Amino acid sequence: MTWADVRGIDSHGAGSLLHYERLRAAGKLTLAAETRVVREDEATALLDGGGGLGHVPAEIAMGMAIERAREGGVATVAVRNSGHFGAAGAYASMAAQRGLIGVVTTNAARPAVVPTGGAEAMLGTNPLAFAAPTGSGPPLLLDMSTSTVPVGRIAVSTRRAGRLPSGWATDRRGRPDRNARRALAARRLTPLGGDEEGSSHKGYGLALMVEVLSTLLPGTAPPSSGESHEIGHFMLALDPARIRGDDGFGAALDRLLARLRASPALDPARPVLVAGDREHAEAERRRASGVPLDRALVEDLRGIASRAGVDFPFASR
Amino acid sequence: MTWADVRGIDSHGAGSLLHYERLRAAGKLTLAAETRVVREDEATALLDGGGGLGHVPAEIAMGMAIERAREGGVATVAVRNSGHFGAAGAYASMAAQRGLIGVVTTNAARPAVVPTGGAEAMLGTNPLAFAAPTGSGPPLLLDMSTSTVPVGRIAVSTRRAGRLPSGWATDRRGRPDRNARRALAARRLTPLGGDEEGSSHKGYGLALMVEVLSTLLPGTAPPSSGESHEIGHFMLALDPARIRGDDGFGAALDRLLARLRASPALDPARPVLVAGDREHAEAERRRASGVPLDRALVEDLRGIASRAGVDFPFASR
Repeated sequence: MTWADVRGIDSHGAGSLLHYERLRAAGKLTLAAETRVVREDEATALLDGGGGLGHVPAEIAMGMAIERAREGGVATVAVRNSGHFGAAGAYASMAAQRGLIGVVTTNAARPAVVPTGGAEAMLGTNPLAFAAPTGSGPPLLLDMSTSTVPVGRIAVSTRRAGRLPSGWATDRRGRPDRNARRALAARRLTPLGGDEEGSSHKGYGLALMVEVLSTLLPGTAPPSSGESHEIGHFMLALDPARIRGDDGFGAALDRLLARLRASPALDPARPVLVAGDREHAEAERRRASGVPLDRALVEDLRGIASRAGVDFPFASR
Repeated sequence: MTWADVRGIDSHGAGSLLHYERLRAAGKLTLAAETRVVREDEATALLDGGGGLGHVPAEIAMGMAIERAREGGVATVAVRNSGHFGAAGAYASMAAQRGLIGVVTTNAARPAVVPTGGAEAMLGTNPLAFAAPTGSGPPLLLDMSTSTVPVGRIAVSTRRAGRLPSGWATDRRGRPDRNARRALAARRLTPLGGDEEGSSHKGYGLALMVEVLSTLLPGTAPPSSGESHEIGHFMLALDPARIRGDDGFGAALDRLLARLRASPALDPARPVLVAGDREHAEAERRRASGVPLDRALVEDLRGIASRAGVDFPFASR
């Protein structure tokens, strides 16, 4: 959660504790869960998260994938019976920090994405993260939901104007729903692409790919509409040095990213970015000046600490 | 090419021969290329395509990935110094036909996709294919460019109304270009998502992920704006039975796909589909009634056969 808060990914930061406390109160979260290795061999492994939060099994899984990929060049670890694991990019970054490429997917607990041509949400916002090590500077880091926007973006919009762009959510008849509050309750988000004309079947297909890798590969139960269900994760690590047979990957990625950043921008004041640039810049700012938490969130966190019987670590200002 | 033609993916069918003949005439294609194994080990390999068409090295690469994934559960093979390989889905399907999950990416020879916030095309339409084996019926098969539409869709539009939907291509100032003929010449397509509001940074990020896997992982030269450059491919095979430790993957995928296909449709006459359904249905039709080739294409193919000094295999009707 701190990893996300530092990078400005507030939807996966400390605010997640409110969601986790609700899950615990509803008996849907085993806080004392132990991660168990179901099976493992040289290049693959299967973990069971014990029905707890996903952060711990996900970190163990990527650690095992990294270790194996350093031996054999490629490795995959699947996790079943897990829970929400925060930002997928946190685990993909673990690979990049060790000179490897990391790919991470997870399904989501509640359906929120409507298939192209469909009237009801059938899949989660099913994120995909990809990280690759550069020669210098922070890793290339793509961390995206496969919907046009994640649920958190709709939630943020309820607090602002309350109006959504027309391609983010639909009503039961497939028409754009531009009322943020109603759209948040209805959970009928569009797949990336927005509508048929915009090729939303591709976003829908990506969400399905993520569902298969995250739930069917580890053998987790697929979603049942409207109810909470099991969450699974997929982790892949690749060693570019082993596959290429040389150490040129990082420098080649530096050149590619430099070419993109130097390419002509529509607005000279807003240079072309690559995936991860925005979050890296925010991390630099927040490491210097701290992570802003709004007053309501601080009070919520204080309440959680009190109900959990632990000291609240932040002083009020 | 036949694989694509049978499935109605006409952009990658026999019509591709026109493009390949132009490449050959321009000296950009070594037709007598030999595929060479640069290095290999238990779970990975690197091939060199010898500067020829990609079809042969891609098929060899996925064959090697499948063989290794059956031994170790996961394998990846990268190809450099290759060429256009047709439909990415053809190689991903090879894995699914053998009970494995297949992932395939390739870069493209000419830039056609404009980064979010950028004014010039910097990446190709960089496709991604994913195939997974079902218990019964054809595999799940996602085969998509990471742009809103591939270049071929723009070309097809020049023959029809000549007007494009507003989210497909842009002019130099980032405004929608709805003139199909002009957009085809300008090659300034949008990443999946269409514009900033539609999260085009995700399509751009996916195109960049594909570029990294297809060119930097095998050590192929990255694109240089406007010029032809080397093409590389990335192949990944995963064995669900090995990773899960049981044979339940296919049946679980059947259930997931059945649930999606049975989900409420906006138009009851157009049921919700899953990736690959449309192509599979078209293949059923074309296997029965043949592949329609329009007269102009048949004449083009006859000309290619004549210039290549080979018999033309199709009788005129």
